Amino acid sequence: MTQDILHGIDTIVPENGLAKKLAHGKTLNIKLGFDPTAPDLHLGHAVVLRKLRDFQQAGHNIIVIIGDFTARIGDPTGRNVTRPPLTTEQVMANADTYIAQLAKVLDITKIQIRFNAEWFGKMGFDEVIKLVSNVTLGQMMQRHDFRTRYEEGRTIALHEMLYPVLQGYDSVVIDADIEIGGTDQLFNCMVGKMIQDALGCKNSQVVVCMPLLRGTDGHEKMSKSKHNYIGLTEDAENMFGKTMSIPDALLIEYLELATSYSETEKANMKAELDSGNCNPAEIKKMIARNIVTIYHDAAASEAAQLAFERKVQKKAFSDVDYQPRALAELGLTPDSTLLDACHAALPEKSRSELRRLADGGGVKINGEKVSDLNTALTQTAMPFTLQIGKRDLFRITA
Amino acid sequence: MTQDILHGIDTIVPENGLAKKLAHGKTLNIKLGFDPTAPDLHLGHAVVLRKLRDFQQAGHNIIVIIGDFTARIGDPTGRNVTRPPLTTEQVMANADTYIAQLAKVLDITKIQIRFNAEWFGKMGFDEVIKLVSNVTLGQMMQRHDFRTRYEEGRTIALHEMLYPVLQGYDSVVIDADIEIGGTDQLFNCMVGKMIQDALGCKNSQVVVCMPLLRGTDGHEKMSKSKHNYIGLTEDAENMFGKTMSIPDALLIEYLELATSYSETEKANMKAELDSGNCNPAEIKKMIARNIVTIYHDAAASEAAQLAFERKVQKKAFSDVDYQPRALAELGLTPDSTLLDACHAALPEKSRSELRRLADGGGVKINGEKVSDLNTALTQTAMPFTLQIGKRDLFRITA
Repeated sequence: MTQDILHGIDTIVPENGLAKKLAHGKTLNIKLGFDPTAPDLHLGHAVVLRKLRDFQQAGHNIIVIIGDFTARIGDPTGRNVTRPPLTTEQVMANADTYIAQLAKVLDITKIQIRFNAEWFGKMGFDEVIKLVSNVTLGQMMQRHDFRTRYEEGRTIALHEMLYPVLQGYDSVVIDADIEIGGTDQLFNCMVGKMIQDALGCKNSQVVVCMPLLRGTDGHEKMSKSKHNYIGLTEDAENMFGKTMSIPDALLIEYLELATSYSETEKANMKAELDSGNCNPAEIKKMIARNIVTIYHDAAASEAAQLAFERKVQKKAFSDVDYQPRALAELGLTPDSTLLDACHAALPEKSRSELRRLADGGGVKINGEKVSDLNTALTQTAMPFTLQIGKRDLFRITA
Repeated sequence: MTQDILHGIDTIVPENGLAKKLAHGKTLNIKLGFDPTAPDLHLGHAVVLRKLRDFQQAGHNIIVIIGDFTARIGDPTGRNVTRPPLTTEQVMANADTYIAQLAKVLDITKIQIRFNAEWFGKMGFDEVIKLVSNVTLGQMMQRHDFRTRYEEGRTIALHEMLYPVLQGYDSVVIDADIEIGGTDQLFNCMVGKMIQDALGCKNSQVVVCMPLLRGTDGHEKMSKSKHNYIGLTEDAENMFGKTMSIPDALLIEYLELATSYSETEKANMKAELDSGNCNPAEIKKMIARNIVTIYHDAAASEAAQLAFERKVQKKAFSDVDYQPRALAELGLTPDSTLLDACHAALPEKSRSELRRLADGGGVKINGEKVSDLNTALTQTAMPFTLQIGKRDLFRITA
């Protein structure tokens, strides 16, 4: 079990700290911070959550810190539009959404949930001064983001430097043995350790950072704002289809970080990939099947695969695959263009994205590629089928 | 009167701000900050206080901010031994001492005194975050001390960056029109202006910085810790004697910054100095007389000059100038050395200082220089007179 827990971690500070804590045999407090401004979880977050499940199954205590204190303040400068102040109701709703998603990986009946306004809400200015005196500017500037912004002469509002100290102090309050996050959280997690040490706590937390999963674009880390994510609550077909859309270069990364295959199974699949004798798409399907099974179930996973193969791979769509749309329902008239129709059917794609898709042969009318989206709909007999990209198919009726 | 107020200031920000505020004709709120860890005032502080008196005499409102909130916290890191946390009683005692000294320059029945724990004591962490969000790291790093310490890799605890923000916020609370200090306070005063502006206050304070007075050593700014100061509460003879000890190179600086002579009188004295026909010691005496008159009165000033001339210049001491000391009272025996006797009589001078003084001819027995302080007292007939330096004279009796 200890071997399972130690497996797949990117960074442990101090290096032998986790093995030592585990060897001690006591129940450990494992801290997981949650920023309630961003409640949607995806496979990137799940890398951390699945490691937490290893800890939970070994009998350790998972403590989720809801950072409600700062979420309700937001960014007082108003410069960061992604951080408006949240009401208590919004924080609670986001926390509920978050915990419901945690349930897809963790036994949430056994986790502890703490809201940090509990301790920060009653902290006076004098205590704030004493708290932040434990941290130096030099330590804060170890954070890459602060250092580069300072060196480039960009603005760092002073309260931003307090935020890592706040979340670090959470570790003191909950007596954390371990704080876990992605490797992009190394700095924040280290501040927790630093403050525990500065305040002479008996516990000095071990920092455990999991590797970052790249998104479906194959380049950037998975993130909602980059639109390259696979959400934990997506339906089985979307989850399967999005996984099938990752570039082959990410197969091993997804196999390692996102699936529940055993080490032996993973080794076999890697060997097959290395041999060059197998079609990577077959391995990708196995990965997608496994992922959908984790977040839905085996039956849903099988159905998702069948639907995917029928629609995308065999390019054979049955009537049931079409999404029928009447012109009026889409807000179109016969004078509208094909571009208008595509955008009305798939509003999440911008007009320029749709043009690029058509240029690449990704838009089809009755199965035939069309490159000129400026054509009026009157040029096409109704009803017709409109395929946009690999997976979206509509039947447009008058 | 406006001309008097504008006279002798080193820096005004914005440059035409003070003239504009004065032209407006309303009663101005003039802020003076006081750090209650250092209650002893000297002629250096008086440069600022005498400018405040100009404002007070013109009918403006002087508001003294006692920084009790941070004084009671002290330096939480314990690294700065000059900032232990003060008790409320110590703060009050220091404030009393301070205000009693202010009375030597200002009409203290007309000043307003505010303790900043009044507003900071009830400020919550959320309000602290909003407050400090108005200031950027870049702005704080304009402070020379912060910038050099950061660049040299020395420690800056994060709470130190909050302190200028606190004292800046004082300006918001008291609705300051003007903040005054020495040129070494320019940064702190500017933070007050910055925070008023960031919070959209109707008042944006004008910063008025007075020149710094150098101490009796002729080099460093006057400061208690440098032992080069002339305290406002020193007795007339010490005040006169210390002023007479300043190097000639500082005569004009003291004439300008420390005396109450009129502009015409100052101009005449400067012309005399420039002519090279007068003894600078005579101008120095006029400066010393004026200074002692300000903080004592004309009679005390005259007596101080007479005593100084008798003792130091004419080297003619009368019996009344001697401080009689018996061996036993000094903890000496006839076997003690001359060095023991000097150190017992003047314990504030170290043994090595006394040796250097003797080497330079500054120690005399019965008016004769002695260079060897290792001689036993038995070598000298009792009683004898012992002169140490220019102003300390003892009669040592058996």
